[in-house]
Amino acid sequence: MPGDHSSKQYDMDLEAIRSKVLLMGGLVESQFSDAIACFRNGDIAQAEQVIKADENVNRLEVSLDDTCSHLIVKRQPAANDLRTVMATLKVITDLERIGDEATKIARIAKNLHERGTVGVLNHYESIRVLASRASESLHDALDAFARLDDKQATRIISSDEAIDHEFRAIMRTMITFMMEDPRTISVALDTLWVAKAIERIGDHAKNIAEYVIYVVEGKDIRHTDYVYTKINSAV
Amino acid sequence: MPGDHSSKQYDMDLEAIRSKVLLMGGLVESQFSDAIACFRNGDIAQAEQVIKADENVNRLEVSLDDTCSHLIVKRQPAANDLRTVMATLKVITDLERIGDEATKIARIAKNLHERGTVGVLNHYESIRVLASRASESLHDALDAFARLDDKQATRIISSDEAIDHEFRAIMRTMITFMMEDPRTISVALDTLWVAKAIERIGDHAKNIAEYVIYVVEGKDIRHTDYVYTKINSAV
Repeated sequence: MPGDHSSKQYDMDLEAIRSKVLLMGGLVESQFSDAIACFRNGDIAQAEQVIKADENVNRLEVSLDDTCSHLIVKRQPAANDLRTVMATLKVITDLERIGDEATKIARIAKNLHERGTVGVLNHYESIRVLASRASESLHDALDAFARLDDKQATRIISSDEAIDHEFRAIMRTMITFMMEDPRTISVALDTLWVAKAIERIGDHAKNIAEYVIYVVEGKDIRHTDYVYTKINSAV
Repeated sequence: MPGDHSSKQYDMDLEAIRSKVLLMGGLVESQFSDAIACFRNGDIAQAEQVIKADENVNRLEVSLDDTCSHLIVKRQPAANDLRTVMATLKVITDLERIGDEATKIARIAKNLHERGTVGVLNHYESIRVLASRASESLHDALDAFARLDDKQATRIISSDEAIDHEFRAIMRTMITFMMEDPRTISVALDTLWVAKAIERIGDHAKNIAEYVIYVVEGKDIRHTDYVYTKINSAV
């Protein structure tokens, strides 16, 4: 990335922001994978840890917004650097919402296992594939943000459709369960809320990927067919 | 609000941003109320208009982010003005997501009425109260943003709990319907997704209110018990 500023301290300020974003990203990644583990194994103490960890994520959100705001005043960034700060401000919001969704999954897992209603349907299997896809997207999006890799970002965006497809499949399966045996309604609904939370985590990963492209290429590709065109032209 | 800049043109730039945010706010308000109307009356053409209108909302999001970014370079805002720009960047994201939720409601309404499955349960009544509460929050949040009214913003935040409460009541009602008559499962689920979208619109209105307090009072009150303390101390 061509630099449009000279001070070494300035580089360090930007680097400190990037590191803090990646720290926040690492935290929500753990929250997400731990929440899915709780959904599978019913470890209530672990679910409570996920819920508790959200406080750290929230603190990082507030502190990072503040750091970005100070950098704007102190450094008056332009061009590339300003795009980095603008994108960071948006990425922070997505990461915080991912933390919220993971917390929601942990709460549902806790509740399901406390009610002891898990056994009535194979609730985990249907979630496994969806969760692993979303988790991969999130990991890749953070990686693309760290390495400013717009090609990887493009791939993440184009793979979001597979997550949505998987989500709709789960919805159909759950409706079938509920219709066949009304005793499964409550667990099936909880499974659907978990699926919805995972699908949203996928959306947030896609948003992060869009901001990576904005930083690297200077193009705001949200709500455009940029990725579609790019993939087709590569074929 | 005490000014910390002097140029008249600068004031006009900030005012132009505020007007554009309110324009975007007006658009998503209409989207939301039209989507709820479609859910009630099954007007498919209107549902399609809501979906179509989302393109304008999306365009405004991209254009407003760009305008804010230009203002930062041109004016190097500090203090109050920078807080306004930072808050605006976040508010834009919330407004765009409200547009997404309204679009989702319109799609479900269209689908429900096309399938002709509406009559199996009184699906609208349960949504009416929730929608009117969320719509009031959204309207008040935009109004608080326009007038920089932190007292009103505080009220909006404290009323979000009533929306969540209403949502949980709908969830219980829908589960009862589904259990009593499995033929209602599909419509009850769609009603639940609509309720979820409305509850999220309430959350976004609350976020906007938090940013208003940030602009006016310079305090980032997200994830704090600020509102709780304020209300209790006022009693």
